[in-house]
Formats: sequence, structure tokens, C-alpha cells
Amino acid sequence: MTTPSRRDLANALRFLAIDAVQAANSGHPGMPMGMADIAEVLWNDYLSHNPGNPKWLNRDRFVLSNGHGSMLQYGLLHLAGYDLGIEDLKRFRQFESRTPGHPENFMTAGIETTTGPLGQGLANAVGMALAEKLLAQRFNREDLNIVDHRTWVFMGDGCLMEGISHEAASLAGTWHLNKLVAFWDDNHISIDGDVEGWFTDDTPARFEAYGWKVIRNVNGHDPVELKTAIDTAMSVDDRPVLICCRTTIGFGSPNKAGKESSHGAPLGAEEIALTREALEWPHAPFEMPADIAAGWDARSRGDAQEQAWNALFANYRAAHPAMAEEFEQRMRGELPAVFEPAAQAYIEKLQAEGPTVASRKASQMAIEAFAPLLPQLVGGSADLAHSNLTLWKGSKSVNSDDANANYIYFGVREFAMTAISNGLALHGGFIPYDATFLVFSDYARNAVRMSALMGARAIHVYTHDSIGLGEDGPTHQPVEHMASLRYIPNNDVWRPCDAVESAVAWRAAIERADGPSCLVFSRQNLPHQPRDATQLANIARGGYILKDSVGTPEVILIATGSEVGLAMQAAEKLGDGVRVVSMPSTDVFDRQDDTYRAHVLPGACRKRVAIEAGTADFWRKYVGLDGAVIGMHGYGASAPADVLFQHFGFTVDAVVNAVSSL
Amino acid sequence: MTTPSRRDLANALRFLAIDAVQAANSGHPGMPMGMADIAEVLWNDYLSHNPGNPKWLNRDRFVLSNGHGSMLQYGLLHLAGYDLGIEDLKRFRQFESRTPGHPENFMTAGIETTTGPLGQGLANAVGMALAEKLLAQRFNREDLNIVDHRTWVFMGDGCLMEGISHEAASLAGTWHLNKLVAFWDDNHISIDGDVEGWFTDDTPARFEAYGWKVIRNVNGHDPVELKTAIDTAMSVDDRPVLICCRTTIGFGSPNKAGKESSHGAPLGAEEIALTREALEWPHAPFEMPADIAAGWDARSRGDAQEQAWNALFANYRAAHPAMAEEFEQRMRGELPAVFEPAAQAYIEKLQAEGPTVASRKASQMAIEAFAPLLPQLVGGSADLAHSNLTLWKGSKSVNSDDANANYIYFGVREFAMTAISNGLALHGGFIPYDATFLVFSDYARNAVRMSALMGARAIHVYTHDSIGLGEDGPTHQPVEHMASLRYIPNNDVWRPCDAVESAVAWRAAIERADGPSCLVFSRQNLPHQPRDATQLANIARGGYILKDSVGTPEVILIATGSEVGLAMQAAEKLGDGVRVVSMPSTDVFDRQDDTYRAHVLPGACRKRVAIEAGTADFWRKYVGLDGAVIGMHGYGASAPADVLFQHFGFTVDAVVNAVSSL
Repeated sequence: MTTPSRRDLANALRFLAIDAVQAANSGHPGMPMGMADIAEVLWNDYLSHNPGNPKWLNRDRFVLSNGHGSMLQYGLLHLAGYDLGIEDLKRFRQFESRTPGHPENFMTAGIETTTGPLGQGLANAVGMALAEKLLAQRFNREDLNIVDHRTWVFMGDGCLMEGISHEAASLAGTWHLNKLVAFWDDNHISIDGDVEGWFTDDTPARFEAYGWKVIRNVNGHDPVELKTAIDTAMSVDDRPVLICCRTTIGFGSPNKAGKESSHGAPLGAEEIALTREALEWPHAPFEMPADIAAGWDARSRGDAQEQAWNALFANYRAAHPAMAEEFEQRMRGELPAVFEPAAQAYIEKLQAEGPTVASRKASQMAIEAFAPLLPQLVGGSADLAHSNLTLWKGSKSVNSDDANANYIYFGVREFAMTAISNGLALHGGFIPYDATFLVFSDYARNAVRMSALMGARAIHVYTHDSIGLGEDGPTHQPVEHMASLRYIPNNDVWRPCDAVESAVAWRAAIERADGPSCLVFSRQNLPHQPRDATQLANIARGGYILKDSVGTPEVILIATGSEVGLAMQAAEKLGDGVRVVSMPSTDVFDRQDDTYRAHVLPGACRKRVAIEAGTADFWRKYVGLDGAVIGMHGYGASAPADVLFQHFGFTVDAVVNAVSSL
Repeated sequence: MTTPSRRDLANALRFLAIDAVQAANSGHPGMPMGMADIAEVLWNDYLSHNPGNPKWLNRDRFVLSNGHGSMLQYGLLHLAGYDLGIEDLKRFRQFESRTPGHPENFMTAGIETTTGPLGQGLANAVGMALAEKLLAQRFNREDLNIVDHRTWVFMGDGCLMEGISHEAASLAGTWHLNKLVAFWDDNHISIDGDVEGWFTDDTPARFEAYGWKVIRNVNGHDPVELKTAIDTAMSVDDRPVLICCRTTIGFGSPNKAGKESSHGAPLGAEEIALTREALEWPHAPFEMPADIAAGWDARSRGDAQEQAWNALFANYRAAHPAMAEEFEQRMRGELPAVFEPAAQAYIEKLQAEGPTVASRKASQMAIEAFAPLLPQLVGGSADLAHSNLTLWKGSKSVNSDDANANYIYFGVREFAMTAISNGLALHGGFIPYDATFLVFSDYARNAVRMSALMGARAIHVYTHDSIGLGEDGPTHQPVEHMASLRYIPNNDVWRPCDAVESAVAWRAAIERADGPSCLVFSRQNLPHQPRDATQLANIARGGYILKDSVGTPEVILIATGSEVGLAMQAAEKLGDGVRVVSMPSTDVFDRQDDTYRAHVLPGACRKRVAIEAGTADFWRKYVGLDGAVIGMHGYGASAPADVLFQHFGFTVDAVVNAVSSL
């Protein structure tokens, strides 16, 4: 068997992409053709990973931030020896295939994060690199560096134009994440054509301004230059590295190379034939010569790497058994056994003590109660620590080498904050939380969606949850945000009515292993609600009867958060026929079985009034056309909170009137 | 009357802020105290404006991007002589006052844009500066520069941390917006404390990387240094300018200056007394010595400036009457008289011809038909021109000095794009449109909200509106986006079912002077629907009977966009008792009178099925608890569109079954 040239190895990636896109009649060949040489050098000479075990804990993380080039990653996984066969590649972009249009971590082994929405991959990678740094700080011991891997990112001009690249790169610089290495696919082309008309940044200077080491002017098609650059990058020990690779999009295509026409559509049969000629690749589609396949196969090297690490970890376990156990438990995403009973005891204690506090304060109390039990809990706020109340007694900035570093000063960067949380969760070993005002969940919205799509356990804390924030006015007062966040599939949104529900929400978010939670808290104080043991247990079901009618309910009031207290007052006035349902999480309630839901909201009772200081229409799903909603129908205003609640009709009288109008 | 010192003049701003925040017991004194000297120099020596006519067309635009410092702006407006009395300042942050917590352009004369959500003010300002540049290119004639003003921006560290500052500054650099001057309030403090822990960018280097002129190290409390800097800024003729002002937050407060404690809370009576002493300001709260008041009064200077411009404009009108008319009409926000009949004729022609095209193609056809009549129409796409189909035959890049420049290559910058649209709309003279995939409206979400809150006529075009986009998969397939955009108050969302509805939606968006519209279009072809004249006219009412039952409807099918064709097919199968309602805009439909709404959706008919390839629950407001919804309950998947529609149940059989289940 001959030894194939590096170019031949790279061409294998090119033609897998070209042919798969052609077969699907859809997809993006240009980027894989442009970045194939970079990928070849990185994967064959540097990447530390084991195709036989995509979940090896100390593997390097590889992130394709320009996710439209998914066929590059599928080609890499296939050739390296992951469980992704040539038949999978032939089914590129087909229903339920393991090769969807963009890389999806939940569909394909070896995909670390779901990418496509530009810029977020870079921010995920910053989260992963932060995870590595923090785990290394906590767990590594002399000569026992069980956490020691890199995070590699591919990204294009699109990622760099997006605002989130600014936020993420800035934090990576501040945190000196030297094990983060990003390759910029500098091909001077984006979808609309030559970027000269819309992307004139001096990107190297920009990244230097963030405190990155920048390696300029690397020929992205020259393996020697690439190796020199990567060697340099790996020698940098105090900051993240950007390698600027000049490349040609659609490299090898005689008529489409260097043009946007190669970006997002099949090359076409004729051009593919010409490209085969130009690159001297005579093989049929999806046919791989044995020498090329052998040149790529990373299984034995990967297995050896993991075995060596296993030996190291065995030594570590012998020397530091408790730490080893914590490390493995955290990486499995498991909670310490102490958590569940302690959380239950805390919740029962709160119910007994009945504090009347703002739910944001209750949130901080819950963090204070739970965080000492959960070294995996790491998080912070987008420059609103004293408003979101995210700091607790054990908080130590991650911008340090403290072994217990756990608090993230994100600065005013909501979008990167959330995508970094996703990266921390995906890396493993952490349950991240982030925080801002509810209205600014808007800034982070697509990252919240990505948490949910990926099933990442990220906890998004949103305080100042309604017009109840008062004087800051409509720019700061959420209206549609509760409803809009609830509509993100697989996103559990909680809006607790008191300190007890707040603690239950935090516990649910921590225990939920397969998706994110949004915890929404008030600025203002909320009264404690009395509950028996059943009611206390049913909070976790998302909705429950907080005060029941005498006999069959004639009227049901459904409320969340600050409006539960109002509903209870109104019920008092309305008399015995009224049931009050507290509904802290519609998402969780909707997942309960039919019997439970019908028990809480019996179909026969159509006199229903929902009360929430947010979009009224959302509640039609519970009150139907015959019920009433006391909610918001427009923007709030700048005034003290009590004036606003009065003005916008959140009063006992309004509830009573709504009931009588039915 | 003595001449007050510059410091005294600045202190007037400081104490108006200090005392108003104290009176409100809420607000942000630190920024006004820190930026008072900058504001004093800019407003008294440079700003070209007329307090007597806040809408003078050629005024400079002043944007407070760090909007929490609103009292600085209210102080400026009050002292300069705008219609904002001392009584207004005393009612800072009170209900319906003209001095809300953050500056709101719809509450207060002289406020150009609503700020508070950080970073967006800068992007609005980029839009305003672009508007000025484009108007100057089109209208100015030799010695008749009727458009000749600057845009000044105040911004803090928070604005600069936000990703949108990257996107906006990058475009400003690319476009060489030399009349844009931004002041960075470099006080080294954000809410969480000294920014050293989370904001370590070399900001001057970063802005130089964007192609800005950067003036470094200006003492923001030294009027002489400030004047030199501003003089330099005004001499720059080829790029935007950043003036880096070192300031002390809470300047003058003996115990809180330079600390985050001065940022977002009243100083307190004791500290205020100490500050009065330290700054030698003996005057009672809200009391202004006559010499200080006189030193600030800009009314006669402003009036003279406007008079001079009026004279210039009179000459212009004499020399170029048609251009003068166009200019004034555009600045009034009026459409040319030719538009309405031409639009009507185009829509009728489309109805007669009945093309079956993708609605994104129909959108492009509408632009092609309308844009030649509307020189005020300016817009583009976030690097998806050939997918969003936003280019038309008359498109000319704004990155040129063409008098008819009208097309914006925004690059991959959805958030800044949308906030720049807002700036263009607020400046006047333009009806902006922007475009991306519907799913990436997420990236721009808070700017869409700001369009709606401000009542800005910005048109947001979103294509690839559902799983119908196919192979790109769930990262690119909107699900919750239609519902979530509809929940933004004062935002009109349209999802047309064919080319005719697409043209009507475009027309409605153009004619809607008091708010934004989101126009949502399909990737795939949609069949033409037959309509009589009444039906054609009723499209503009947001929802209408597209196919009526024989006699009273037994069943009503409600559908939008690509699902209208499906509803029509199902109705065919279901027989005469079925009415089909096409509902391209629920927002517009909900604004119709009761009679019309009850005519379309009679209360007696509860057998209702809504069909939309988006969040199912949204439709409960129309079908109630007794109806059914055929919609999405989770994420899409990567596969050809027809496979997905089948898989997710968008079929005639599913509609028929849903009806029979009722």
C-alpha cells in the first residue's frame, strides 16, 4: 500500500462532501472543500480523540462553528473510524439519518455541539475551554493531570461578523483560555459574494485587542505552514489563539472555486467531473481507496491515547479516591447522593418558616442552600449580580486559579453568556446557570433555543419578571417573554409564586438532565402561601390546586408568580366555589398524565380566569374561548410598581369582575 | 449676571440628575455625574439643534445609548429650552410623566430614540448616520447642502461589551460614516464593579480594526481636552470617530465617585449634601440660578440655525422644486400619491394572473413592483440576498456615493441590521426593510421589540418560514417564531398564502406609519388562491373568508401561509359545510371591529380547526378548548420538505380526521 499524500487525504474529505451534497441535491460543498487541508492536518497530526469511544472524558473537543460545512465533519468522523458508515453519508440530509443538514449532537456520535446558527459554536467552545480550565484547576494534581485537553474551533467570516463572536472572544481573552485554538477560514467570500462590501474588519487586530495570540497569514492549503502554526498555537500558555488561514472556498473546482456559487448548492454533475480531473481524484462517489482509508483511520491511535489516560486515571484514583469519584460522577451528569434529601429538607423547612421575600431573593437563598452540595454548579450574571442575586457565600471568580472557582462575571453579554452555559453543559462536569433581566432574554434567545434543542442542562435565571420592576419602564418590563420562552420546545419555564416554589423550581432545574430550565423571578416581595404535604409535593408537577373549592369548583382561577397572591385574595372574596390553581410551570404541567391534569382543571368547569402579568392570549389554551384572562395587552410604563399593577388591572376587583362576567 | 464656569454649567446637569433620582427614589445618578462635562461641551459648543422645533429636519441627532443615564438627557433638554419643564423633571419616573426611567422617543420631545437595552442606541445611531449620508447623496446640490448634520452618541462600557456594538461599529467603518461621533464613557465601572474582571478589551485598538478614527485618552472632565477632541473628530472626513473619555462615575460625590454604588441608586440625602459641598453647588433641589440657566439656553441660537437652514432650503426649492418636494414628503413620512393606485392595480393584476410561486419570490416581485415608486425604500439582507430575495433591478449598494443608493449588504449581523433599520426609520426620509431567515429573527429579537415599542416603520422580512425549508434541519426551521413575534405588542406579523397576499402584506407594511411589520415568506412554492373583489379587499383586514360554506358553517378551518392550500384541499374533501378562513395577520385581524370578526368567526361555530406549521398552542385563542390545532409540538428535522410535512401531520387526511374528532 502506498502512502497517500496529504493532499490526497484532504481530497477524500472534499469528495465525500461534494458527492454527498450532490446525492442529497442540497447542502454546502464550498466550506469543506476550502477547509479540508486544515482539517486533515489537525485531525491526523494533532487531535486527541478516540473514535471507538466518542465520550472519552479527556478527548479534545472539536467544534464546527460554521456548521453549514457539516459534511466536512461527517467526512472526518467517518474516515477517522467513528460509528458513521458510508451508508450514513449517502443519506446526508435525509429523514432520521445520522447526517442531518447541520451537525446535531443528539443525532451523531462525535458531534460535540449542534451548530449552524452562526457564531454560537465559538461561544460553545469558549464554554468548553472554560470547563476544561476549571476542571483542571479542581482535579489535577502533580504529575496527575487527568484533565488536559484542547478545544479546537473552525469558523468562517459569518461567525466573525456575528455580535456573539465579540462577546465570546472577549471573555476568552479575559479568562486566558490558552487551550482554545480557533481557525478562521479566511476565504473572503460569504453568501452574498466577496466580503469586501460588508466585512472590512482587521480581524487579526481585533482579536489581538481581545488579548488573543494571533497567527497571521497562514496558507490554509499548505500542510507545512499549518503545522508550524498549530505548533506555535500549542506553545502559547497564556491566551487563546486565532490562526488566520487564507483559503479558497470550493478549492479544486475549476469554475466555482473562490466564488459564492460553491457555498450552498451542489456543484452539479459537470463541475464535479471537472473537479475530479483537476484534483486527480478518479474514484467513484463514496468509494475510498484502501491507502486513503488507512491514512485516516485513527482508531488504534485513539485507543492507545485513551488507554494511556486510563492508566493515568487509575493512578489518580489510587492517590485521590474521593476526587476521582467526584470527577466521574460529575462527568456522568449525576448529582451527589446528599442533594435530594437536603433539597427536600430545605423545601420543607421553607414551607414551615414561610418567608415573604422577593422570588429573586428566594432564588439566591436556594443557591445558597444547594450550591455547597454541588461543586458542579457554576454560573453568574451578565453584570447584574446584585439585581439577579446570583452571588452566594461560596462564590469565587472563574477568572482565577482557585480550585473552587465557580462564579462567572459574564459582563454585559447575554448571548455569549447563554451559549457559554451551553458549552459548559455539553463539555460535562458542570451544571451552569446564567442570569439577566427577563426582558433581556431576548438578547440571548437563540442560545436558549439551542439549549433546548440540544437537551443541554443549562439554567437560565431571569429576574425582574414583569411590570413589577416598576420605574425602569417598558424597555425593561417583559410582557411577551414568559409566553415566548414557554413556546420554545423542550424548554421548562418556571415562574414561582413564593420562596417555596422558587426552591422547587431550582431543584427541578438541577435535577432535569435532558434540557434547560428558565427560572423567572420577581423583583418585589411575594407573600408566602400555605400548603399541606400533597400540595407541597405537587409543585413539582408544574401546576396544582393551591386552594380548593368546597365541592366541585364553580370557578377556577389560574395564576403564576406574583399574581398567585392576587388570586388567593380574590378567591377569599369570591367565596367557597372558587378553586385557585398555582401554575409555576405550564411546560411541566402539560407533561403530566391526563388524569392529573383533568383533576386540576376538570373539563366540566369552564368558568376559568387566568391571571398573569404577561401576554394574555397565551392563557387561552387553559381558559378557552369561554374564560377570561387578566394579563397584558401592550407595553408597560415607567412608574412605581403598585401604580402599574393598579393601572393595568391586576386588582382583586378586576378578578372579581372577570369572574362575574363569565 | 456673571458668566458661569463650564464646571458650574456641568454641575447643573449633575444636580438635576442627583435631585430627580433622589425625589423618585429610583434611577441612575452615576452616569450623568460622570458624563456631565462632556455633555456640557457638546451641547453648548457644538450641537446643532433647535429647542423650539425638535423636529427641525437638519438637526444633529443625539443618542444616549447608555439610556439608564436618562436624567442627563432630560437635564439637557430642560436646560437647552425644550418643552420639558422643571415640573416634568420633578416627576422623573412617575406614571405618564415625560421623564420615564429610560428615554422614550414617544414620550418626550427631543428624544430621538428609545434607549436602555444596551448597545442598540449605537446601532440606531449608525442607521441615522447612514440616513444622513444617503439623503445627502440624493438631495444635496452644489452650495445647497440641505442635508448636513452629525449623529452624536454617548455610550458606556455596557454598550461596548454587547455583541451588537461589534456588528454596528463594523458596518459604520465599512460605510465610512464620518459624521458619526461616539463618546465612550470610559469610567472602568459597570454594575458588578471594576470592569477589570470582565472587560479587558483594548477598545481603541478594536475600533481602529473597524476602520474608525480613535481619539485616545481624553480627560472627560476637562473642557479644553474635550474641545480639542471634538474639533479633531469634526475634521475627519472619511470614517466614524470614537472619542475615548476617561471619566469618573458619580463625579463629585465624596464617597461614591468611582464606585458602582453611584450607578443605579439614589445617592442618599447625606451624600447629596456632601456632594453639594464638594462641587460648591449651594442651590436647592430643582433650583437653577439665572446665570446658569442663561448659559444653557439654546433657543435663540437654535432658532437662528434653523432660520439659516430655512433660507438655504428656500433657495433649494427654487432651484430644485421636485427634489424639494420629494425631500419634504419623505421627511413627513408620506408616500408618493402614485403609490396607492399602482399598488392596487398590481394586486388586482396578480389576482387575475394567479402565479404559483414561493412567497419569498412573491415578496421580491412586490419589491420590484413597488420600489421604483418609493425612493424612500431602502433595505437589504443579512448576507442572504439570494435566499431572502431582497435584491431588485434597481438595487444599488449604499456603500457607494450613488445618488440612488438603496441596497444594504448588512453582512451576517441580524441584530445590528434590525436596530439600524430602526435608526433609518427614526431619522426620517426612509422606509427601511431588512431580511434574514425567520429562525434568525431570534438574533434580532429585542430590536424587533424596540421597533414596535417605538412605533418605527421598519419592515422585517423573514423567509424560510417553517419546516418547509427542508434539509437545513431544526437549527434553521422556525417553530415558535410566528407565535412569538405576534406576541410582541404593536408588531404586525404577516404570513401570506400566495403571491396576492404577499403583495397585500408588503403594501400594508409600507402604508403602516406607526409601527413595524414582519413579513414571513415561504421557501417553497405556494398555489394561487381564487378570490372575488370582496375577498381581495378583505386580505388587508388580516383574516377573511377564502372559501365559504353553503349556509351556516358547520366547521371552520383557519390557516395561514403554506397551510392555506392544505385547508382548501381538505375543505374540498369535507364538503359544503366547511368554511376556510385565511388569516395572514392575526394582529391585523384582532384590530378589526367586533362585527367583522364575528362575521368571519361566528361564535356559534365551535368546530374549528387551525392549521399552521408552527406552535400549535398559539391557535387556542381562535379555536378554544373545543377545537383542534394541526401545528408543531416540537422541533423539525433535516429532510426534504414534503417528507417533513407528511411526518408532522400536515396532510389532508390529518385535517379531515381532526374535523371528525370534534
